[in-house]
Amino acid sequence: MDGDQGCPVSIYDVGCPGRLVLDRIGDRWTVLIVSMLNERTHRFSELRNAVGGITPKVLTQTLRGLERDGVVTRTVYAEVPPRVEYALTDLGRSLITPITAIREWAEANAGQVMSARAESAATHAG
Amino acid sequence: MDGDQGCPVSIYDVGCPGRLVLDRIGDRWTVLIVSMLNERTHRFSELRNAVGGITPKVLTQTLRGLERDGVVTRTVYAEVPPRVEYALTDLGRSLITPITAIREWAEANAGQVMSARAESAATHAG
Repeated sequence: MDGDQGCPVSIYDVGCPGRLVLDRIGDRWTVLIVSMLNERTHRFSELRNAVGGITPKVLTQTLRGLERDGVVTRTVYAEVPPRVEYALTDLGRSLITPITAIREWAEANAGQVMSARAESAATHAG
Repeated sequence: MDGDQGCPVSIYDVGCPGRLVLDRIGDRWTVLIVSMLNERTHRFSELRNAVGGITPKVLTQTLRGLERDGVVTRTVYAEVPPRVEYALTDLGRSLITPITAIREWAEANAGQVMSARAESAATHAG
């Protein structure tokens, strides 16, 4: 019985596989980076420039995590200077559907959320 | 023309509405809290107990942000002691589809991601 194996996939329990995975993909930087890589492979500097507000340190950490989790590949081309490109794996490409759903919700409802924020600010100021 | 208005919805640019919204919903705590509230309304203590690893401070901050953004309502019942319940708004309920897609991906692919992590750890140890 699955239930006997502890926490095979629960996303609510710290340390369970489903939650560890959610901690990686339920992250704004993952959403943005995977969306960029869905268009084409990118170099580190291209990602740094395209993803507003990300620091080189956080970009490095996020890319390493995604590589470790089998979502992204890092390919080094023996050129001078060496060229390093990041791309999605098959697993990474399977993330596109849920990530696009999140991104599209953010874009579609931005106006409504901004109105709610403005109203809330006005209420608390009044 | 929309393009003249700066950044109506771009999710890549800091400060643009789409990105501000993504910063809220592209967050593990939002995914977990909205998923809990989709089942039924919850009290603060119920959420704190159900969402593993969340601190009271972060739960308070996240709920306030979600309330401010029009995703969650906070209702105070005049009992002794006062009862406070959190529920999803219509806007919050519209988040269920994309959030469920993220959660289900995490659950469905947990095994594959854990295998990739183990393989990566073995490679780096070897």
